[in-house]
Amino acid sequence: MKFPESLENLIKHFQLYPGIGPKTAERLALFTISKLSKESVNSFSKALIEAIEKIKHCDKCGSITDKDICDICNDQDRKEKLMVVENSKDIIAFEKTNAFHGKYHVLNGMISPLNGVGPDDININALFTRVKEENIKELIIALPSTIPGEMTCTYIQKMLENSGVLIYRIGYGLPVGADIEYADEITLIKALEGIKKL
Amino acid sequence: MKFPESLENLIKHFQLYPGIGPKTAERLALFTISKLSKESVNSFSKALIEAIEKIKHCDKCGSITDKDICDICNDQDRKEKLMVVENSKDIIAFEKTNAFHGKYHVLNGMISPLNGVGPDDININALFTRVKEENIKELIIALPSTIPGEMTCTYIQKMLENSGVLIYRIGYGLPVGADIEYADEITLIKALEGIKKL
Repeated sequence: MKFPESLENLIKHFQLYPGIGPKTAERLALFTISKLSKESVNSFSKALIEAIEKIKHCDKCGSITDKDICDICNDQDRKEKLMVVENSKDIIAFEKTNAFHGKYHVLNGMISPLNGVGPDDININALFTRVKEENIKELIIALPSTIPGEMTCTYIQKMLENSGVLIYRIGYGLPVGADIEYADEITLIKALEGIKKL
Repeated sequence: MKFPESLENLIKHFQLYPGIGPKTAERLALFTISKLSKESVNSFSKALIEAIEKIKHCDKCGSITDKDICDICNDQDRKEKLMVVENSKDIIAFEKTNAFHGKYHVLNGMISPLNGVGPDDININALFTRVKEENIKELIIALPSTIPGEMTCTYIQKMLENSGVLIYRIGYGLPVGADIEYADEITLIKALEGIKKL
């Protein structure tokens, strides 16, 4: 005894997503057929197709866009500074701060030999071309302080050693509002490394 | 700064589901465009349409089916016993036990005046017609022991008072494998009401 085939099929498709197990997939599929209007389901179905058809990666920076070159790369006011991030979501996070006005470069991954990810598997070679072609003076590496983050950072540093580009990393330490007693040791070590004179 | 329109649109559609907030919707939409194959997304899109087009409620029992009359209602070996459940998922749960071989009737809800749900808002009138037409001898009410469950049960009992049908309720008490010390009081009261001579 199972649900009808078309419902079982929908359940299977929801299960393609990470964090959605059989029970949740069943709940979502039942919600689809019993609570959503036919219009909503039709428009959801269309939205899936549209997203997969229209969304691509910016030819220059690798971020998610529906154009060949994204709006930020096309912005003539942004120049000389380039921030390296892991993925497109990071751009949105930094843009919300309104505190950085350069361009971005999205690696769409990080070097991680343990997971079989080398420099050729991520969008890193285009970075070195851009640094030259776009006359970049300052490079800010905004990657997490993890093993892949450190490895990717070291790689970029080596590749640009004699390029004359100033290379920075974002600051690591205690997040604003966090309690010292709950912070992990590595974060505290980073916070001590990042001490500033008042 | 936001994602491209078609991606934002997809995020909005994922947010239609209960338990999916803005962050989860964003994660699911990004997974759709970056990790799922074009084939998977196309087939997900089709599965949505197919489910909403094909799935309906059984004309007899109200359960989810892709036929006019569901397989269980069409099963000539199932007769005289009818189990009343809240929704189609409950049927699957009971069928897994292989311990009940009658028919089912799905209310698709329960009477709950506090939420403005009366007898006419659920699939309950068809139940009384069926009891007569299908010559039902035993009715088993398998509704949860909640306020709407109790109200619905009382209503069914009143409506079938002089019908000669034997009406049962499923047993309530301590779930198998549960510890008494963690059980709530009402469950323990039900367990005491349900004592059996060994």
